[in-house]
Amino acid sequence: MPMGPGASGGGRALSGAEQAIVALDARRERTLEELIEFSRIPGVSAPGFEPAQVVRSAEHVAGLLEDVGLERVEVLQVEGSHPYVLGEWLDAPDDAPTVLIYAHHDVQPPGRAERWESPAFEPTLRADGRLYGRGVVDDKAGLMLHLAALRGWLDAAGGLPVRVKLLVEGEEEIGSPNLTGFLREHRERLAADVIVLSDTANLATGVPALTTSLRGMVSVAVTVRALERPLHSGLWGGPVLDAATALSRVLARLVDDDGRIALDGIEDDVPELTDAERARLAALPFDADDFRREAGLPAGVRVAGDASRSVYERLWLRPSVAVIALESAPLAGASNQLIDEARALVGVRVAPGQDPVRVRGLVQRALEADPPWGVQVQVRPGAAVPGWRTVPEGPAFDAARRALAAGYGRPSVEIGCGGTIPFVGPFAEVLGGAPALLLGLEDPICNAHGENESLHLGDFDKSCRAAAWLLDELRSVPRLGR
Amino acid sequence: MPMGPGASGGGRALSGAEQAIVALDARRERTLEELIEFSRIPGVSAPGFEPAQVVRSAEHVAGLLEDVGLERVEVLQVEGSHPYVLGEWLDAPDDAPTVLIYAHHDVQPPGRAERWESPAFEPTLRADGRLYGRGVVDDKAGLMLHLAALRGWLDAAGGLPVRVKLLVEGEEEIGSPNLTGFLREHRERLAADVIVLSDTANLATGVPALTTSLRGMVSVAVTVRALERPLHSGLWGGPVLDAATALSRVLARLVDDDGRIALDGIEDDVPELTDAERARLAALPFDADDFRREAGLPAGVRVAGDASRSVYERLWLRPSVAVIALESAPLAGASNQLIDEARALVGVRVAPGQDPVRVRGLVQRALEADPPWGVQVQVRPGAAVPGWRTVPEGPAFDAARRALAAGYGRPSVEIGCGGTIPFVGPFAEVLGGAPALLLGLEDPICNAHGENESLHLGDFDKSCRAAAWLLDELRSVPRLGR
Repeated sequence: MPMGPGASGGGRALSGAEQAIVALDARRERTLEELIEFSRIPGVSAPGFEPAQVVRSAEHVAGLLEDVGLERVEVLQVEGSHPYVLGEWLDAPDDAPTVLIYAHHDVQPPGRAERWESPAFEPTLRADGRLYGRGVVDDKAGLMLHLAALRGWLDAAGGLPVRVKLLVEGEEEIGSPNLTGFLREHRERLAADVIVLSDTANLATGVPALTTSLRGMVSVAVTVRALERPLHSGLWGGPVLDAATALSRVLARLVDDDGRIALDGIEDDVPELTDAERARLAALPFDADDFRREAGLPAGVRVAGDASRSVYERLWLRPSVAVIALESAPLAGASNQLIDEARALVGVRVAPGQDPVRVRGLVQRALEADPPWGVQVQVRPGAAVPGWRTVPEGPAFDAARRALAAGYGRPSVEIGCGGTIPFVGPFAEVLGGAPALLLGLEDPICNAHGENESLHLGDFDKSCRAAAWLLDELRSVPRLGR
Repeated sequence: MPMGPGASGGGRALSGAEQAIVALDARRERTLEELIEFSRIPGVSAPGFEPAQVVRSAEHVAGLLEDVGLERVEVLQVEGSHPYVLGEWLDAPDDAPTVLIYAHHDVQPPGRAERWESPAFEPTLRADGRLYGRGVVDDKAGLMLHLAALRGWLDAAGGLPVRVKLLVEGEEEIGSPNLTGFLREHRERLAADVIVLSDTANLATGVPALTTSLRGMVSVAVTVRALERPLHSGLWGGPVLDAATALSRVLARLVDDDGRIALDGIEDDVPELTDAERARLAALPFDADDFRREAGLPAGVRVAGDASRSVYERLWLRPSVAVIALESAPLAGASNQLIDEARALVGVRVAPGQDPVRVRGLVQRALEADPPWGVQVQVRPGAAVPGWRTVPEGPAFDAARRALAAGYGRPSVEIGCGGTIPFVGPFAEVLGGAPALLLGLEDPICNAHGENESLHLGDFDKSCRAAAWLLDELRSVPRLGR
């Protein structure tokens, strides 16, 4: 197994980072065992699941932090929140910057049990070199890789080259409803010169990436009511129509038959790319067949949307719409009734720079306008979260690039993320504009949020080493004047 | 409580029919108790429900038939069928015709328990003068009204004026899959000069009707597959779209925004009405407000379809389409996934005279053609049952009109039925072209097949009397040469 650069560099003494990497490589099996143990805890933060398991998860995380050697480890809550875990190590030299590392310990609901090839909360290693289980990659490995790096430094080098504060949230998967409040409340304690977030993706397995933009998210729930009660389809059908047919017509307005978003004006406030940005996207490796395979597109299903823009641009920098949930009357036991009511949840990913509230209004109006044969369409607006963009320049980003290259053994790329991390903007803002490094190890087939979520073990090793290098490289980040 | 005509007609002796009616009116409470007892049996014939309950239902019916005084009562099955019950009384004068009465003892699934104001299988009398429970009107009252009439005649007049054969099916609610085979097997035993079917509707509460046409039925199941597995809507949305959005676009092709059926060519083989037929429809009482109220149309919901045709024509003599079932990912626990698969069941009621197989092909092709962004659309053809029409002329129809008028105290009307009774055509055909009288007592608010199915008790009384009169009036039907 390769070690960090210089590890076999002749007679000179190993640097702190090199020692940390030797130590974390040596402890590799135990780190994996700890990840597996942690992933057995079903800490689902969503409503309807046991909050006690999220508490158990937080306590487990606190134990891990203490075991690594972090200090002042605490489980904290704000009114009504799932528990946060905090720990820190502040004994670095005076001129060393403070790094705030963020991860989350809660997980998504497991989804449909019958779709899991091994149980969601029994993490299972398979012959493909991946660990399967709910939360293994999102975000339990994201936390464990930093713990492995911190432990490597503390055990082998006796200390860290920078001050570290570690914040592990317990409700990221439900949209971090209390994070801004928590940050405000603990602003002094969390003050940092650079933020590292662990919950993003690489471009491909083995290709490390720095994420420089996120899409935002809008959701609206729509209910169509066509009848006071179900009616016999023979005795009433024709003059009377059902709610499912009406809802279909309403939802059909969202896209055209090429899958292009069809909401008038929705793209009006999407920032156009500069030539440099477009060139950077064009330089990223992209293989259409790999994309189809990783997405799991069945034969004949076309990659959709505006063909004049690259797939990466469509994914990261343009809005998209989806029917996230659809329910009416089940097929089992269907008895030729005209359905009285049908419901759907529409989700829009907004481009970084777009106004999510404006987009939500557009969607709402498109769904409500001119209801088919006058059916009652009720739209309940949900989330409206803006996207986020950063300019990846300066010492922090340079440090990240060097650390990723060292950890993965190849240069990193800069990518966008089509997903949404609602708190990234507020996070940087509350913390006085510290640069935010979004580094994660999800790969395109990890199926985060889906059934059979998995972690590539080779990337996990590389990400642990990159994290150890990162602590070293971040010494060059200037302290924010405060 | 009024009795039949002539019951208070001075000193002359009561006719057989009059005696029967006095007797059945006197036994009114007990008849209702028997209907309630019978309606406690959850004889649901649909797959997934206990077949043993349908057997129990058949045995209960056999007991009722014996108790009334019918002879040769038997529970019969053909290979794989739910049980039929047969009984007869053949001791009428030589020149009397034979009447085959049909009813069914199985019921629809109860539907959603939480929608029932009283439990489906605990028949409950409410202050509105109706009995609520699954099957009370469809078709348990349809059987009980004939039993009440037969018992009235047998108890009070000592015999029946015509030969009677009574056939009670156990799988009407799943489309009578074995009825034609059963009829063929028992053709001799079931031979009759006139058929009386009990499973249709009146025009309105208290307005008796003779049903002269039925729509047919076509169903197709459609599955849209857009992805091999669900995907994170942020990480993939845009270039990749979900199955629920695609299914919405496919289903939206079925109708236009006025609720007019939008399948090219579907109405090409619908017989146009003659002027006389149109005049007869126009003469029927119709109140748009009553229609809205009985249908339970919420405020703003328009009566849909082709406004150039009357509501009755649209209901009874034109095709209609509905999405009978729609399911994909539920709203509860929705986690911003792109949905991989979505399913629907599309039902079409075909006009009497239309070719259902042709219509099914049209629907299938419309759903399969040009799938949105190439998603996989799989259509599984289901039932294709033709409609039925009769010319309501001759002694049997005249007899029915007189009996309904006498029983309900007002003239009957002739109506179509938008629903489907698959076996009516084969029934009359196997039995040598005997005229078929479709007489039932469902009213527009009875909610057959839906939750809170109910029976109007006043109409139940009237229909019992009409059935007693009918046995008398049918004496005038000529015996078929065989």
